[in-house]
Amino acid sequence: MVLMGETLTQILIPLAAVVGIGFALLQWFLVSLVTVSSGSKYDLNNGYKHKLIDDQDVEENVESNEVVEKCAEIQTAISVGATSFLFTEYKYLSIFTVVFGAIIFLFLGSVKSFSTASQPCTYNAEKLCKPALANAIFSTIAFLLGALTSVLSGFLGMKIATYANARTTLEARKGVGKAFIVAFRSGTVMGFLLAANGLLVLYISINVFRLYYGDDWEGLFEAITGYGLGGSSMALFGRVGGGIYTKAADVGADLVGKVERNIPEDDPRNPAVIADNVGDNVGDIAGMGSDLFGSYAESSCAALFIASISSLGINHDFSAMMYPLLISSMGIVVCLVTSLFATDLFEIKGVSQIEPSLKRQLLISTILMTIGIAIVTFVALPSEFTLFNSGTEKLVTNWHLFFCVSIGLWAGLVIGYITEYYTSNAYSPVQDVADSCRTGAATNVIFGLALGYKSVIIPIFAIAVAIYVSFSLAAMYGIAVAALGMLSTIATGLAIDAYGPISDNAGGIAEMAGMSHEIRERTDALDAAGNTTAAIGKGFAIGSAALVSLALFGAFVSRAGIKTVDVLTPKVFIGLIVGAMLPYWFSAMTMKSVGSAALKMVEEVRRQFNTIPGLMEGTTKPDYATCVKISTDASLKEMIPPGALVMLTPLIAGTFFGVETLAGVLAGSLVSGVQVAISASNTGGAWDNAKKYIEAGASDHARSLGPKGSDPHKAAVIGDTIGDPLKDTSGPSLNILIKLMAVESLVFAPFFATHGGLLFKWL
Amino acid sequence: MVLMGETLTQILIPLAAVVGIGFALLQWFLVSLVTVSSGSKYDLNNGYKHKLIDDQDVEENVESNEVVEKCAEIQTAISVGATSFLFTEYKYLSIFTVVFGAIIFLFLGSVKSFSTASQPCTYNAEKLCKPALANAIFSTIAFLLGALTSVLSGFLGMKIATYANARTTLEARKGVGKAFIVAFRSGTVMGFLLAANGLLVLYISINVFRLYYGDDWEGLFEAITGYGLGGSSMALFGRVGGGIYTKAADVGADLVGKVERNIPEDDPRNPAVIADNVGDNVGDIAGMGSDLFGSYAESSCAALFIASISSLGINHDFSAMMYPLLISSMGIVVCLVTSLFATDLFEIKGVSQIEPSLKRQLLISTILMTIGIAIVTFVALPSEFTLFNSGTEKLVTNWHLFFCVSIGLWAGLVIGYITEYYTSNAYSPVQDVADSCRTGAATNVIFGLALGYKSVIIPIFAIAVAIYVSFSLAAMYGIAVAALGMLSTIATGLAIDAYGPISDNAGGIAEMAGMSHEIRERTDALDAAGNTTAAIGKGFAIGSAALVSLALFGAFVSRAGIKTVDVLTPKVFIGLIVGAMLPYWFSAMTMKSVGSAALKMVEEVRRQFNTIPGLMEGTTKPDYATCVKISTDASLKEMIPPGALVMLTPLIAGTFFGVETLAGVLAGSLVSGVQVAISASNTGGAWDNAKKYIEAGASDHARSLGPKGSDPHKAAVIGDTIGDPLKDTSGPSLNILIKLMAVESLVFAPFFATHGGLLFKWL
Repeated sequence: MVLMGETLTQILIPLAAVVGIGFALLQWFLVSLVTVSSGSKYDLNNGYKHKLIDDQDVEENVESNEVVEKCAEIQTAISVGATSFLFTEYKYLSIFTVVFGAIIFLFLGSVKSFSTASQPCTYNAEKLCKPALANAIFSTIAFLLGALTSVLSGFLGMKIATYANARTTLEARKGVGKAFIVAFRSGTVMGFLLAANGLLVLYISINVFRLYYGDDWEGLFEAITGYGLGGSSMALFGRVGGGIYTKAADVGADLVGKVERNIPEDDPRNPAVIADNVGDNVGDIAGMGSDLFGSYAESSCAALFIASISSLGINHDFSAMMYPLLISSMGIVVCLVTSLFATDLFEIKGVSQIEPSLKRQLLISTILMTIGIAIVTFVALPSEFTLFNSGTEKLVTNWHLFFCVSIGLWAGLVIGYITEYYTSNAYSPVQDVADSCRTGAATNVIFGLALGYKSVIIPIFAIAVAIYVSFSLAAMYGIAVAALGMLSTIATGLAIDAYGPISDNAGGIAEMAGMSHEIRERTDALDAAGNTTAAIGKGFAIGSAALVSLALFGAFVSRAGIKTVDVLTPKVFIGLIVGAMLPYWFSAMTMKSVGSAALKMVEEVRRQFNTIPGLMEGTTKPDYATCVKISTDASLKEMIPPGALVMLTPLIAGTFFGVETLAGVLAGSLVSGVQVAISASNTGGAWDNAKKYIEAGASDHARSLGPKGSDPHKAAVIGDTIGDPLKDTSGPSLNILIKLMAVESLVFAPFFATHGGLLFKWL
Repeated sequence: MVLMGETLTQILIPLAAVVGIGFALLQWFLVSLVTVSSGSKYDLNNGYKHKLIDDQDVEENVESNEVVEKCAEIQTAISVGATSFLFTEYKYLSIFTVVFGAIIFLFLGSVKSFSTASQPCTYNAEKLCKPALANAIFSTIAFLLGALTSVLSGFLGMKIATYANARTTLEARKGVGKAFIVAFRSGTVMGFLLAANGLLVLYISINVFRLYYGDDWEGLFEAITGYGLGGSSMALFGRVGGGIYTKAADVGADLVGKVERNIPEDDPRNPAVIADNVGDNVGDIAGMGSDLFGSYAESSCAALFIASISSLGINHDFSAMMYPLLISSMGIVVCLVTSLFATDLFEIKGVSQIEPSLKRQLLISTILMTIGIAIVTFVALPSEFTLFNSGTEKLVTNWHLFFCVSIGLWAGLVIGYITEYYTSNAYSPVQDVADSCRTGAATNVIFGLALGYKSVIIPIFAIAVAIYVSFSLAAMYGIAVAALGMLSTIATGLAIDAYGPISDNAGGIAEMAGMSHEIRERTDALDAAGNTTAAIGKGFAIGSAALVSLALFGAFVSRAGIKTVDVLTPKVFIGLIVGAMLPYWFSAMTMKSVGSAALKMVEEVRRQFNTIPGLMEGTTKPDYATCVKISTDASLKEMIPPGALVMLTPLIAGTFFGVETLAGVLAGSLVSGVQVAISASNTGGAWDNAKKYIEAGASDHARSLGPKGSDPHKAAVIGDTIGDPLKDTSGPSLNILIKLMAVESLVFAPFFATHGGLLFKWL
């Protein structure tokens, strides 16, 4: 019934992964052609051997070797700082991983008292499945693999980003188009490495696990869910730790540098400037990489788990079972083609073309992917099969699945475009916020908060429609593949997302290297577009997190044997209202952490300005290392409480209150967290770009608010600073909260179903 | 089986209401003994004929008649402005009321095509009940009565507040204790009038409706729910309109006056100052009065409706049915005794005693009320009866009910105390926020937002415990009476709540009348405590709204014939996630409205300062009327979209998507809105008091941040301004959103159950 046999599937998936990795390496090579070592002859063809942008764009702004040397030096400092922080972070995380791995093993092993005897299958009691102990072991292994791949994704992203930022700066001397291509190519490296690695490790794990599990696919794919848990738990700490690191440095640097000392952003005299730039790489790059990998791993796991108990799994139809992985494989190919449009087929000739070009990437990848989905659906799925749906069976056709994946994909596009509308300074919402700076910081904040709240409306409707359609067509499997659809173009999404912090760093390096005002203006333009794409990336991350966690929630509910999650039962309702509170608790912790760490940073920066003679005059270098240490210590210490909140809540709720309450908690945190996350991200993005709008002064309106240092600009800087922890710490961490609690519940579901609800049992 | 017969019940309820009204009038009389007419001999015994506070407190700060005259003049201006605004608002509201009344009649009448024939009862198909047309008519009448009482509650509150504010100022000359007593007595007037009127109108309506309905209590109490709808819909517009009015004026006045012109708050040279003071009375007093009346009416209606389909209603046990009204009657008596502790039994001798005294009111009323509940429960309820619980019957004892009401009451106390902790400048949270002003407005805002988020945690756990216990003991009836329990001490709650804006106005009048710095310090101290009590009042309003709307939700679900509200069905889930978004949509509208109106106000105030010669010097009077007009026009225009969102959502969701989706919307907006509302109110309250903390300079720490005009103080002013729309417009309106949608759904449930879900029927 399925057109594509198992052999072809077994070839195509790893092939796509290898192609993706190869393409990423090629892009890396192209980026490396821009030389940053001093003494080299400046080469006008750098990286574009085959195709030169119009000569008139290549400006004669060739500066001395000294500048190149300075760039190289700064890049090294940032790279060393970021690597050193990540290694310290990973040291702590490895302890966590071992401990939590042990918890998984003990909890799941205890379900059948560590018995090695085979057990009746959960969904087909007539057959014998592998022992619960095996699930405990393999879930733990999958967890470790997920954690490792997640860390790797973040780390590689950071490496390419810190490799590319000075190169982007240097290319900016030739024109905004060339700088754009370097930044974008580097983002592409990260996007493809992540998508391909995630796919490959998952694919290999499934095949290796299968050697043991054989025909027990129920057990196999139950164990595989550990992969998602591992990915997301690393992502949580990466996002929170990285977010606190970067924003403590950023806020601290701005408060003393910009506000008190009146020196520009990224000025090398500011002691916190290196910490700030390191932070962009560990927070916005490494943290985000882990995060999106987590989403990808979880949605794949959710889809696989649900499929394993459908007729696809029961009939052992391998190609059809691998549908989620085939979608991702197709996604890599589609994104490869799409990225050529940005780097080779179209040219960026001016500042105003940057955002449209990035938006075009989204549109092209979505259109191509729709065709790709149709192909995969047609060749990999049987024309009809049945799904397990809360105790009943549901008959679906392959075209139903096509609509499910596609609606997820297109909902992602809608979210992306709406996010762009609300956070780009090309449209009226951000311009209104900028305008409100006339009357000071207070109105700026009021308008910014209102903008963030408002920006929630359409994404939520988009998610709701996607959920309704995919749920109606193919129950929870529909939701899971809709999430996958939204993430299928992850390589493109990540490329335009990672482009942001790379441009931000490029601007920082330009400033620190003392390059001309013109260069700084170009990197600022790249960065403004980057703020928008970062917000778009966050929108995707949040939208997909909503779908993923709903799918995981559905998988959890069926694994835990719950028939209905009825809001009108007290156990569920208290879970719902407490779950809806968790995003607030979590945000309170992370915001306070950033605030406190920033205050420490401010004190240190002030101390250096006051005690180091010649610092303000630029004759002495500041002590960057102490500021790096403050950010490092703060982030490592402060990531523990919010991390514990997220990791412990499902364990406590499930163990003491039982699966119904836990189901309520998951639903509550999902529906509430999505709103908080979207509004926080967009508010922050809008403030940042309102400030950039005033600084750029590209229209009469903008000029009437500026220039830098004017009262409206000062008000805009305050808004920007407030937005920092909202958009880079609290907001993006919340989507991890949502999905991590869901995947953790799913992994521990066998334990909760057997031993959970102690408190109510005692009462 | 019930100790108290119907006759006694019929005597005691109206008696309690009359006693409450009498007590309120007595307090009003005592307030009126403070004379504000000019030319009168200053009387040291003013209002305290029977009991003088220690003579040493009466300071020799007797100023000339001129000041008294000025106070009288300002009070008149505020009173005239407030009255005129409320009349304009009520004109618009009367149009709305007529239109919406017609909608209720048409929708409910259409359920059985306006047939006048009797129909089988909903819960007992063997008996005949009154026709659906009768329910349409009586629901409409109840709606109109509720609307009228709500408006009356707000209006009377405004009247006493504007009557008392100058009197409070004048008493402040004698000492803070005397001023406190006047402000508190006036709050008491409002509290008792509202509680007693609400009870009396409901009681009379039930008895009058009964003349027609006879033994059809199902129909009778279904129609009575219109009372709650009427109350809350007026409250919505009162809160939103009043909130926009007051904050547009407040923000506008502050932005030009305090920030640009460096003149103090409430300076008579500021053209927006009268609008600001009028706003306090129409927003914080009239709006809040309508709001709490709405909560009271709805919780009573929810409890009555649920009881009517329990064995109490089926057996026509009138006294037991009137349990909710008897609890409220007992509440009036308890609050009467409690208020004597504040006005007669204890004395306020210094600033530091104000807050403890107000807190003591909460504690005393809670302890006494617990005893009161026990008595009412023992005499009015049968020892055992059965409740209808989602299709099954549940046996409960009267002591179960005692615990339900009590846990609501004590949960309210917990919420009140926690709110106080997070918003009073006597504790570390607000002091930390004040401290963060050292590094500017940005950290102030970050810390303030974090504080608001954090302050949600314990109230939510308190609500969750209350819900779990009362739901487990007595299903939805338990929730409804828990809400009533929380509101049973409403007279005391409102007294300490209304005390806040009265003190705020008193401070404004002191400033405008040019009274000494010392007087202003006293009124500021009263006002700081008032900010905390206002936050406590909002905490109560939100907590009770959560319980009320859950009870209404439960009633709606049983009336609409829904068996389960299963999160795992797509119809419910999309409702849940869209419902959780509504508070954000609503907040975006209200915040933006305040922002835009404030900008207009800023322009006008600037214009006056720039064009009216002698204004800054104080030789010419500003044009107060134009500012009043800006606030009036803005609030009347801007209250329509958020009002429409709330009123139309249940109608659209129910008519087009059906009762399951609507149930999801209600649950989603409930669990999400509670969090947004609590955090918004507390953040705003904390910022206001952080500013007051710096201004008052009562400790070394506070003095290190001040004085007025220092950089930290400026940062604190920005926070305060941002907090204004959060705490006085968006936050408190959200609890109305939650409960209003629930009560509207309940009233329209017969229509939705018959004709709803058009869209899914078409598909």
